[in-house]
Amino acid sequence: MGRRSLLLLLLAFLTPGAAIPVPPALRALSSLHLSTSFRSRPAVAMKYSIHYIQQKVDHFGFHTDKTFKQRYLIADKHWKEDGGSILFYTGNEGDIIWFCNNTGFMWDMAEELKAMLVFAEHRYYGESLPFGANSFKDSRHLNFLTTEQALADFAKLIKYLKRTIPGARNQPVIALGGSYGGMLAAWFRMKYPHLVVGALASSAPIWQFENMVPCGVFMKIVTTDFRKSGPNCSESIRRSWDAISRLTEKGTGLHWLSEALHLCTPLTESQDVQRLKDWISETWVNLAMVDYPYESNFLQPLPAWPIKVVCQYLKNPNVSDTWLLQNIFQALNVYYNYSGQARCLNISETATSSLGALGWSYQTCTEMVMPFCSNGIDDMFEPHSWNFKEFSDDCFKQWGVKPRPSWIPTMYGGKNISSHTNIIFSNGEIDPWSGGGVTKDITDTLLAIVIPEGAHHLDLRASNAFDPITVLLARSLEVRHMKQWIKDFYASLRKMH
Amino acid sequence: MGRRSLLLLLLAFLTPGAAIPVPPALRALSSLHLSTSFRSRPAVAMKYSIHYIQQKVDHFGFHTDKTFKQRYLIADKHWKEDGGSILFYTGNEGDIIWFCNNTGFMWDMAEELKAMLVFAEHRYYGESLPFGANSFKDSRHLNFLTTEQALADFAKLIKYLKRTIPGARNQPVIALGGSYGGMLAAWFRMKYPHLVVGALASSAPIWQFENMVPCGVFMKIVTTDFRKSGPNCSESIRRSWDAISRLTEKGTGLHWLSEALHLCTPLTESQDVQRLKDWISETWVNLAMVDYPYESNFLQPLPAWPIKVVCQYLKNPNVSDTWLLQNIFQALNVYYNYSGQARCLNISETATSSLGALGWSYQTCTEMVMPFCSNGIDDMFEPHSWNFKEFSDDCFKQWGVKPRPSWIPTMYGGKNISSHTNIIFSNGEIDPWSGGGVTKDITDTLLAIVIPEGAHHLDLRASNAFDPITVLLARSLEVRHMKQWIKDFYASLRKMH
Repeated sequence: MGRRSLLLLLLAFLTPGAAIPVPPALRALSSLHLSTSFRSRPAVAMKYSIHYIQQKVDHFGFHTDKTFKQRYLIADKHWKEDGGSILFYTGNEGDIIWFCNNTGFMWDMAEELKAMLVFAEHRYYGESLPFGANSFKDSRHLNFLTTEQALADFAKLIKYLKRTIPGARNQPVIALGGSYGGMLAAWFRMKYPHLVVGALASSAPIWQFENMVPCGVFMKIVTTDFRKSGPNCSESIRRSWDAISRLTEKGTGLHWLSEALHLCTPLTESQDVQRLKDWISETWVNLAMVDYPYESNFLQPLPAWPIKVVCQYLKNPNVSDTWLLQNIFQALNVYYNYSGQARCLNISETATSSLGALGWSYQTCTEMVMPFCSNGIDDMFEPHSWNFKEFSDDCFKQWGVKPRPSWIPTMYGGKNISSHTNIIFSNGEIDPWSGGGVTKDITDTLLAIVIPEGAHHLDLRASNAFDPITVLLARSLEVRHMKQWIKDFYASLRKMH
Repeated sequence: MGRRSLLLLLLAFLTPGAAIPVPPALRALSSLHLSTSFRSRPAVAMKYSIHYIQQKVDHFGFHTDKTFKQRYLIADKHWKEDGGSILFYTGNEGDIIWFCNNTGFMWDMAEELKAMLVFAEHRYYGESLPFGANSFKDSRHLNFLTTEQALADFAKLIKYLKRTIPGARNQPVIALGGSYGGMLAAWFRMKYPHLVVGALASSAPIWQFENMVPCGVFMKIVTTDFRKSGPNCSESIRRSWDAISRLTEKGTGLHWLSEALHLCTPLTESQDVQRLKDWISETWVNLAMVDYPYESNFLQPLPAWPIKVVCQYLKNPNVSDTWLLQNIFQALNVYYNYSGQARCLNISETATSSLGALGWSYQTCTEMVMPFCSNGIDDMFEPHSWNFKEFSDDCFKQWGVKPRPSWIPTMYGGKNISSHTNIIFSNGEIDPWSGGGVTKDITDTLLAIVIPEGAHHLDLRASNAFDPITVLLARSLEVRHMKQWIKDFYASLRKMH
């Protein structure tokens, strides 16, 4: 897998959908699930108000005193001044409204915890752009896009809310986040324990960094998901790479493949082949992340257990190259065209259409250096070693910066985090990011919750009738711990007064 | 007290001495103490090697990838690979060799803890200048002088030492520091608990910030020191300010006073009067800090219990203005001329002669905003309220930056630090900085040690025959805790393997 797709793994969520005719079989599946899962419980109305706070562009330097507007959302329908709490979503690499809408768990527990919900947008994403349209112009403007600055924004925001909202001052705050937002939630509790009583870090791969986990673990989990979702499924994909290579060696191969895969822009030169493979790999990776047990609309509309649906098309690896790739198209089409809106498949759209993608690309080129590799044996992908030098050179070309792979472990402790307290690390076992996550208790207040049937931060999603029992248990455990943190907070408050 | 002197309180240590004939009485006192305290125990030979590490100028931004050389010292005479430890001095606002030479406690306990001693120089001080001679040129060059950058330097250095010194990898590190260095030691444990098992923060006024302690507490303690060191001593000083005002209202007053105080540069205009008062105030403050029980040479040579010696000249407040100020001169002369080298007293030298002073002035104008005030009732100084607006305007004039008084409490937790562990806060009760220090246990691993007869970080100084029993007890308690941290570290290491 090439560098481009590695940069985009987390960002896949942000990719807008494409549009081709939907296979009738899928439509049927769709309506089946709609009639049950979507209607099984009354939806919690997500009503929030939108606010802005002036933040220093640079919390860590005084040469510039510039400020920018950070956006945040507040929902206080169930908030109680008396004995209440504040659930604070540490926003990640995208529009905060989108994260807000996809974090139903917070909405579901608001009443029980008498909680005010706050969703804070991460700087350089959504509307929170330090230099407006120039924010991504060059490394000088991007200089303030770091985890440390983002955490400092959160700290200032919490202090501001406590100061300005009557009744909020003496309330416990809990940080919550998923994926990169989960890392931020955990790191926020580590670095600012005076501001949050605990953190729920869902699907937060805080160990997907230098020398902490094998670089191949991610693709291995993706592969396992496909292997378990249908007979010969991962094997079909494993064989597809050589099939693509063989086909595109021939003169007419690029044209044939472009037609067979309904690509919006035909492949024209040999280097397009690697781009195509990267894009297909990314699709399988994304599917592994959003392999939810019910019809969902996170990235775009997908059926329940989408990998199972994909694997229906990939039962037979022992077919001709053209046949195999026609099957691959059907499989891709599940992901890109469940809605039936896609006219063709666009292999480059994910890379450039969103500010989020730009910001995240920069972050992976600076602090968030996550080594990935594949070997084609333990996984179904083509072998790619992790080549830091090449990665670094590419980063310098693209952004004019050099990644510092040892910084995150130095700053946030790597595997040596046992002196911290009150963090829950939850991971879905089928989520490839669980490979870089904390999946075993570290101490009795640094807890790991593993959800066997869980994809990427399933526990943060709204309750659903098709939720496996394991995620219900996970959520109930999470709520129990959060209640304990809140109780402990009020107990120590009473002791002080 | 005006802003200038406030900025220099901590830096007084860095002031080079002046030179006037020594009164014979003091010479006698001097030789008396030399014959006992200085010779009472064999001096520990302070042999260290000097090293440099390349550090990023900006740990928190990627636009610049520039590096600079940070200096550090290593003394490993007593270090043992087997069961040993690393004592890491978190350097503060000055030349690291000077701190090394004045932190005898580390040398005294090296053998018992089988410890390697490391003294790390703080960026922008001593030789560790990010932009060489241009480091203090303007706010652009000074932009990287922050506590966060300094702590990051320490983190990188510790990781580097563990990686490169054979046998150091699996050893516990303890952070130690005094004064601002003590704050850094405590903050380092709070922010990087994965790198140090604990911290000894001696005379670290981590609460001398916005809204945490009364702004007058500092000057009140200074006054108490003088009040208790001789009859009418603080009262004489309290009356001296009006005496100066009355004298200098007259035409010849400035000239007379310049002569009486042996000033190197005569006072010529009315605004010199405030400068003079600030300088005298600062002298009393400095004396309160270095009021050690034995002859010492920290800032410059001083007798044992120097305030007592000073107060011998200030027994009678009910004298004429000229008489009172001649007594004040005798008192000042104890501080500025115990060595007998001073030819005159220089009231502006402390402000400009040292790079350290520049750096610290900038730091107080950015992060290290410590409110001070006096009222002339609870203290012996002229009333001065804390005027943030004026302070901020002065900072902008001098450095082109605006102070952010709420930042340190936001970053380091203010009074809400109970979730951290393994920090000892030691304070001398006669040290004015104890007013902003932690003087009561917070939890059973966040401990306060108070040394009733202790001046500024007396416990960090080399053992001395004249040490009061309370500092011996403090040191022994500190060593006991450090040994426990080391023991716990090795126990958990064994558990892991």
